[in-house]
Amino acid sequence: MTNLAKIIHNNLLKENKTVSVAESCTGGLIAKTLTGIPGSSGYFILGVVAYSNESKTKILGIPAELIAKKGAASRTIAEKMADAIRRIAKTDYGLGVTGIAGPSGGFSQKPVGTVFIAISNGKKTICKKFLFRGKRLSIRNQACFNSLKLLRSSF
Amino acid sequence: MTNLAKIIHNNLLKENKTVSVAESCTGGLIAKTLTGIPGSSGYFILGVVAYSNESKTKILGIPAELIAKKGAASRTIAEKMADAIRRIAKTDYGLGVTGIAGPSGGFSQKPVGTVFIAISNGKKTICKKFLFRGKRLSIRNQACFNSLKLLRSSF
Repeated sequence: MTNLAKIIHNNLLKENKTVSVAESCTGGLIAKTLTGIPGSSGYFILGVVAYSNESKTKILGIPAELIAKKGAASRTIAEKMADAIRRIAKTDYGLGVTGIAGPSGGFSQKPVGTVFIAISNGKKTICKKFLFRGKRLSIRNQACFNSLKLLRSSF
Repeated sequence: MTNLAKIIHNNLLKENKTVSVAESCTGGLIAKTLTGIPGSSGYFILGVVAYSNESKTKILGIPAELIAKKGAASRTIAEKMADAIRRIAKTDYGLGVTGIAGPSGGFSQKPVGTVFIAISNGKKTICKKFLFRGKRLSIRNQACFNSLKLLRSSF
């Protein structure tokens, strides 16, 4: 994870680009990983751990009706989170991650381990859906790793 | 760290209280630690990693002039962060942490390892100053551990 963060670190500093992160199921793990590298304040601007639906509405401006309609763990909300945090923090990239880390919260259509990861660069927002296996902390780690992978592939 | 988070977890659920966190030097580590426990969505509402000074102003409403005057790593700003996140997230407790994790950023009056940890419960805001030794990740871990200790002692 640290190696991937270092590659992102070097890329962002070299390109003079910035990033912000809106996390739900990863709960701050992505922000923690990125800011673990000395000098990360050169590109990491803002992280929001929008754990409750109210936080997603109040801080990120995602309409409560949309969350109720699509579900907090959905492609639409991940994309909105990525786009919102990028606009709020005025960064080049915005990362949005939402999903079901478990052990509860899963259901037949969206079992535990379902995670949506979105990246917005201001021109387009892409989102990938994952189904990770394992327990809560493993799912969070896999979500963080794949978020960083997707971020790196966006440069 | 996890044991302390579990004690906080049990306390908050038992007392039906909520918490939010505004982090600077810990970069999401406190949010990540609290949300690592299954069921934490019952009390963890919002985390903000206000890494840049602009984020502290824009998201937490801390005046830029105050940050310039007191320094981002200061007792005043830690207290403002704790109070602001509690009000924004409408939680019972607000935790604010700012400091200098290094390796750069230190100076004679505030060397690397200087960390201010504040807790607001709506009636009062307390702040403790620490000087941690070690490298960046160790300083962040110590800051997280002492933040959780201070939070637990506030119940």
